Amino acid sequence: MKIVFYHYGIPSIDIMKKELLEGIEVGDFIKIIKGTKVYKGTLMPHHRFSKEELINLKREDGYNIGIDIDESTDIELIKRRKKSLEEDIEELELDKNKPKISILGTGGTIASYVDYDTGAVHPAQSAEEMLYSNPEIGEICFPSVEILFSKLSEDIEPKDWIIIADKVLDEFRSGAEGVVIAHGTDTMSYTSAALSFLLKYVPKPIVLVGSQRSSDRPSSDSHLNLLSAIEVAKSELNGVFVVMHDDMSDDRCAIHRGTKVRKMHTSRRDAFQSINTEPIGSIYPNNCEIEISGHISEIEEAELCKYGSIEPNVSLIYSNPSLNEDELRSAGEKNKGIVVAGTGLGHVKTQLIPVIKEIVENGTHVVMTSQCLYGTVNCNVYSSGRKLIEAGVIPCGDMLPETALVKMMWALTLDEDLRDTMKSNIAGELTERRVR
Amino acid sequence: MKIVFYHYGIPSIDIMKKELLEGIEVGDFIKIIKGTKVYKGTLMPHHRFSKEELINLKREDGYNIGIDIDESTDIELIKRRKKSLEEDIEELELDKNKPKISILGTGGTIASYVDYDTGAVHPAQSAEEMLYSNPEIGEICFPSVEILFSKLSEDIEPKDWIIIADKVLDEFRSGAEGVVIAHGTDTMSYTSAALSFLLKYVPKPIVLVGSQRSSDRPSSDSHLNLLSAIEVAKSELNGVFVVMHDDMSDDRCAIHRGTKVRKMHTSRRDAFQSINTEPIGSIYPNNCEIEISGHISEIEEAELCKYGSIEPNVSLIYSNPSLNEDELRSAGEKNKGIVVAGTGLGHVKTQLIPVIKEIVENGTHVVMTSQCLYGTVNCNVYSSGRKLIEAGVIPCGDMLPETALVKMMWALTLDEDLRDTMKSNIAGELTERRVR
Repeated sequence: MKIVFYHYGIPSIDIMKKELLEGIEVGDFIKIIKGTKVYKGTLMPHHRFSKEELINLKREDGYNIGIDIDESTDIELIKRRKKSLEEDIEELELDKNKPKISILGTGGTIASYVDYDTGAVHPAQSAEEMLYSNPEIGEICFPSVEILFSKLSEDIEPKDWIIIADKVLDEFRSGAEGVVIAHGTDTMSYTSAALSFLLKYVPKPIVLVGSQRSSDRPSSDSHLNLLSAIEVAKSELNGVFVVMHDDMSDDRCAIHRGTKVRKMHTSRRDAFQSINTEPIGSIYPNNCEIEISGHISEIEEAELCKYGSIEPNVSLIYSNPSLNEDELRSAGEKNKGIVVAGTGLGHVKTQLIPVIKEIVENGTHVVMTSQCLYGTVNCNVYSSGRKLIEAGVIPCGDMLPETALVKMMWALTLDEDLRDTMKSNIAGELTERRVR
Repeated sequence: MKIVFYHYGIPSIDIMKKELLEGIEVGDFIKIIKGTKVYKGTLMPHHRFSKEELINLKREDGYNIGIDIDESTDIELIKRRKKSLEEDIEELELDKNKPKISILGTGGTIASYVDYDTGAVHPAQSAEEMLYSNPEIGEICFPSVEILFSKLSEDIEPKDWIIIADKVLDEFRSGAEGVVIAHGTDTMSYTSAALSFLLKYVPKPIVLVGSQRSSDRPSSDSHLNLLSAIEVAKSELNGVFVVMHDDMSDDRCAIHRGTKVRKMHTSRRDAFQSINTEPIGSIYPNNCEIEISGHISEIEEAELCKYGSIEPNVSLIYSNPSLNEDELRSAGEKNKGIVVAGTGLGHVKTQLIPVIKEIVENGTHVVMTSQCLYGTVNCNVYSSGRKLIEAGVIPCGDMLPETALVKMMWALTLDEDLRDTMKSNIAGELTERRVR
């Protein structure tokens, strides 16, 4: 009997007592007895970040748990794993009377599929793989799953935002009650901002969701996040949201406004934070409870449509003591817009102000945000700020630099005054009274 | 009797009941009786951000308070203000037996001087103005005050870091027991990082301090911060620190490691936060109490010296969906080093990796940090990270992007392997075990 422990193509060392797992394969449904405790679930491949004695079990409710095996541990086979993906999918019974939710895969850790034949984990390449990895989906909605593309989050490009927006539009027109977009976490907030601007009069929820730890890891947030996202997609909310782990507890996700959220930690599951606002609310997927605390947009009596497009030539520049005239001027020449993440209330070196004036006079727009992230740009406190306004800089209030970047890429494609658009609140990205 | 209410050169509307202030001038020491409450202090110019009925009083303990005047309010003149700055300074008695603390002014809101003749507030231009504005300084130390320059914080340049470092060295060699550097808040953490690297074997405290609200405003943090900084400068700590308001209370400042701190809010007084570590401790200046909770460096048995210099040609680039090959290649051609603030665990678009390889092969170093700010870069989780390492990128663990920028500017001037320097903890900027 062969036990295969691969992960990302790297064979794991053979760690578990072979005699204990004699006759058991990854993917089998097993029972582990340890002292007075009994655990049941599907044996997952050993994860290379886990210690050697740990068995990784996917429980029936979808959570992964890690169990330390020792001398007293006993393991029994309950049910042999399915022979093939197709066989398993055939057994999935989907109920058309449940809310119709479209689930779009774009890649990333969230929709990863564990191949029990090789042990490898890779993003789900097909609807079948996605459903096979997350059979609970069928219990809470009538899913329509489609893998749009399978990209690393850092590779999502502005043109992908358009593809996603078009697809979301199609899904709603085909009767979807909500759309869930499985996305890598690195650039999820850029995509959520883009959809917030590109889609106008959104009557229902568009929910981006990712996971910080892949679904084969004992501490994975994949299951909780995905189920939470589907529950939010089924709700009465309207607009673009990011749904991710709220804190270190395992029963709640936060619902963030798509234009006000930022990945604030490289690895923690509660990495996503609403900036300059509170999250819209919380979702407890186990009892289908949504608590709303933030402001909800009113649904407008107009038909959902795509509005504008994306201009790729916009640069995001962080002001700092080494930033010089040449670098700024060069960015001005090559781009149609520049977002400056200034210091403090929105400042750059005094010597750069004439360069900005020159850039603006040459037809490239320049907007100001703050690298502090929290708080608001205010160009009226110091004379240097007033000089920036005179040079033609557009202050962006409490808008995140990344959101301002995406908004500017969008606003440049509209037949409207860019200054007005940047200073108006379009999708919750801006507290208008704070623009000064 | 003329009452002048100017601020930043803008005349305020004449707001207070003239009869109430008949015969009283800004700068006079007065008593305000309002119902059963009595307030004593120096009448400050009216601040243009305050509402019209508010009188701004600087109490004898240095705090500013705002008092609403109404029908019941009565005001008495206690002592006419000094006729001139010189006259006031003559009365300041400095005690040579107190700890000798050097206070260096570089500009910024912290050392602002209120001119009672014009009502204008400007950065202190001389030692006299600094002491006149903050007479309490003389009560807690024997100050040696020098205004190095008077710059807006955003205008502090790399060459200024060298001037400050040289001056700090002089001050310690002249017997200072601690050095306080009054600095604008916008770029304070860049300067604190620079001093942390440029000065080696620092035996005593070097404390940078700023204020978020100028000393003429009722909610000013200037007084608390400056006194706290002096107390820390008198302490047994060694190294470079930033001392700023800790929270919304008015009795405590936090002591941050100079390489681990970042301005995280545009306007709040507790804007400065230690990132990826706790503050070193807290200081309660009113009872001269310092609570230490963080790790303190051991004092090495070697003489304080300046080490290395600053290479200005280093660029900080934030990775995002609009970043393209051209922009990155151009930065590589013009600089000796590039700090990338990657997405998530330290990523850039896959298509940019060959460009980075090319840049590194052409002799420009590239280091990786994360725009998440919190957490650590890890190039071993995904294959894209491993490709970056193969391309020659140096991962910077849990180092802040801004600190990595300053460190690289410094490390490029050393006759040492840049990779080794960037990956070693020099001044608390890096948790070494987290570099991967």
